[in-house]
Amino acid sequence: MGLIVQKYGGTSVANIERIKAVAERVVRTAKQGNKVAVVVSAMSGETDKLIGLAHQVASSPNEREMDILLSSGERVTTALTAMAIEALGHKAMAFTGRQMGIITDTVHTKARIEKITGEKARKALDEGYIIVVAGFQGITETDDVTTLGRGGSDLSAVAIALALNADVCEIYTDVDGVYTTDPNIVPEARKLSKISYEEMFELASLGAKVLQTRSVEFAMKYEVPVVVRSSFNDNPGTLVTKEDEDMEKVIVSGVAYDKNQAKITVIGVPDMPGIASKLFKEIADSNIVVDMIVQNISSDGKATDISFTVPKTDGKKTLKITEGIAKELGAKGVDLREDIAKISVVGVGMRTHSGVAAHMFDTMAKHGINIMMISTSEIKVSCIIGVKYTELAVRVLHDAFGLEKA
Amino acid sequence: MGLIVQKYGGTSVANIERIKAVAERVVRTAKQGNKVAVVVSAMSGETDKLIGLAHQVASSPNEREMDILLSSGERVTTALTAMAIEALGHKAMAFTGRQMGIITDTVHTKARIEKITGEKARKALDEGYIIVVAGFQGITETDDVTTLGRGGSDLSAVAIALALNADVCEIYTDVDGVYTTDPNIVPEARKLSKISYEEMFELASLGAKVLQTRSVEFAMKYEVPVVVRSSFNDNPGTLVTKEDEDMEKVIVSGVAYDKNQAKITVIGVPDMPGIASKLFKEIADSNIVVDMIVQNISSDGKATDISFTVPKTDGKKTLKITEGIAKELGAKGVDLREDIAKISVVGVGMRTHSGVAAHMFDTMAKHGINIMMISTSEIKVSCIIGVKYTELAVRVLHDAFGLEKA
Repeated sequence: MGLIVQKYGGTSVANIERIKAVAERVVRTAKQGNKVAVVVSAMSGETDKLIGLAHQVASSPNEREMDILLSSGERVTTALTAMAIEALGHKAMAFTGRQMGIITDTVHTKARIEKITGEKARKALDEGYIIVVAGFQGITETDDVTTLGRGGSDLSAVAIALALNADVCEIYTDVDGVYTTDPNIVPEARKLSKISYEEMFELASLGAKVLQTRSVEFAMKYEVPVVVRSSFNDNPGTLVTKEDEDMEKVIVSGVAYDKNQAKITVIGVPDMPGIASKLFKEIADSNIVVDMIVQNISSDGKATDISFTVPKTDGKKTLKITEGIAKELGAKGVDLREDIAKISVVGVGMRTHSGVAAHMFDTMAKHGINIMMISTSEIKVSCIIGVKYTELAVRVLHDAFGLEKA
Repeated sequence: MGLIVQKYGGTSVANIERIKAVAERVVRTAKQGNKVAVVVSAMSGETDKLIGLAHQVASSPNEREMDILLSSGERVTTALTAMAIEALGHKAMAFTGRQMGIITDTVHTKARIEKITGEKARKALDEGYIIVVAGFQGITETDDVTTLGRGGSDLSAVAIALALNADVCEIYTDVDGVYTTDPNIVPEARKLSKISYEEMFELASLGAKVLQTRSVEFAMKYEVPVVVRSSFNDNPGTLVTKEDEDMEKVIVSGVAYDKNQAKITVIGVPDMPGIASKLFKEIADSNIVVDMIVQNISSDGKATDISFTVPKTDGKKTLKITEGIAKELGAKGVDLREDIAKISVVGVGMRTHSGVAAHMFDTMAKHGINIMMISTSEIKVSCIIGVKYTELAVRVLHDAFGLEKA
């Protein structure tokens, strides 16, 4: 007998039939002798629909109100899923983010979970209820509704698993698990039976959409075991867990790509201390997440170029901020490019093997793919390239690192 | 400078264009120097859509979960309306039922408001915000979400007007005000410039759908001035207020009808004390509201028939309860009729004028309309008739009491 958290994403609760299928799987898990806490997203498309409505009434809707609006989607699926479970003869209770005691900071639309009280939920589980919790939402200490940002239900699930001291957090989605790369691009892509938190984190942050980045970060920090599975079949999925010796033998685990980034270049920045910090402080204050940053040493010691990437949705906003600062600083100009993609190879085994970066650059060069920016970490190498080369780069790198072989 | 509560129903916030029109009216009211608290319903059709989804997942959905589900509709319109007001350049803040501090009892789907704390809302109004409150919803002392039943946003509005000590509570709907009867049936129906709480209460409970019954009861009890107006034009509407001398001069103010009732008859009930109380206690315990009750003296002193009406939606449930008790009591049988309507004439002047009932019965008889049940109060006479005679009865009574003349 264990305690299992099961999170179902938007496609898994997209309609009444899917919700009933979720209820059946949940009840089956409970009948196997487990306590079950279910976390659900809004029906797929619902959050985008609500965002669309908001933008029809106001060009830049207030984010506090936006959170009240968006949190309604998960309330619907939470209630319906609990009803569907009860219809199968099992006790169930729905919990809103507030009722679950999910306390967040006050950064509306991108809030961070600060703690989960969850007394009522624990009591319900002890009394034999399956609990169904609204993902993606929380509440501030001063009673305002918050949401956790795109994909935030994954974070809800992992945090709830930790709060309830669950044995495992199962993330149900529309794919079987984590693959060496996108099977839509490379048919030979292979499903991984397990992957380390670190690798998963890099893959998630690099645009492999199986798990939301912050949820992986959270799982890694608190060592919450996560399994990524499909809600459309009974395949075993991929276990995301602590690094072990087997994993270290594999040099590269996967190739990821991300088309949702934009690149901004500040041209001719005077080369003096404090420039970069001023720019990136202002961007951070606007809650925009900067990913890669590249600055070259100026050839003449007077002016340099700074390039960085941000989510494409924040591109124009960032451009505006950057232009303001560029003027102040006497830079020559600012350039925004949205037609880019980030390609990365990831693997914990990379730490002890040199030459991965060189092999990657060489492979891309052989196929005529120009590299605009490079960034590396202990377990990944990322390159910014023209978006039109994305699929080509993924295919040739998957092949070059022999990822189709187990 | 006053404090005005404006409530907008489902048709008034049915789409983005209507929400923008509401925002304009609200901002106009604020610019005239008023503090404004707005109460909104869900978009028209939304609540029914959610109920439909619930019944697709479960034949009798849990009512606690139903309330979490249904409360989502008003969250959407509340947030969107606040955004639309802000887009017009005025400060606005959305409040869920909980954030407004609307505390109710624990009768899910039909909860009663116990108190409204509203500190945060008062503060926001003082700081120059237009506040937008989600109607229809509240929260129990133990943090469960509740809804107030069909039309509950009217009650929210009147209760909020009282809690904020507002000067007036304006109820915006898709009709101009309160009419002498349904203009769809009688084109000569006349809009009343004012009407007493008592008359409005009878009209509301008799199926004139302009205001929800409990909201009128509440307004009457605490003497909250209510104005019923259209959100589609600037016509002055109908003031619902305390009875005055002018009103007493009018014998009959309106003719109402209600097709949403079902009649249940218990046949051959042994004529002994305590029978009726046992039956109606059990029905009341199921939170079913009984409207009319008629019991004739038994001709032989041994057995009698009891007839009563309930909302049509509760008809089958009531039948089941009644059949159980009828068996226990040794009654001969129970009969449910759903093809009935209630026709009523209402007026505070009736108190001091005899003959209203007789004139009503006479008029119906002249047109061949059979009366199944009769019930009277100080200011109304109601008859149950076959549903097919509804429109005919309304027309001939409107004419017989000369209601087309001011």
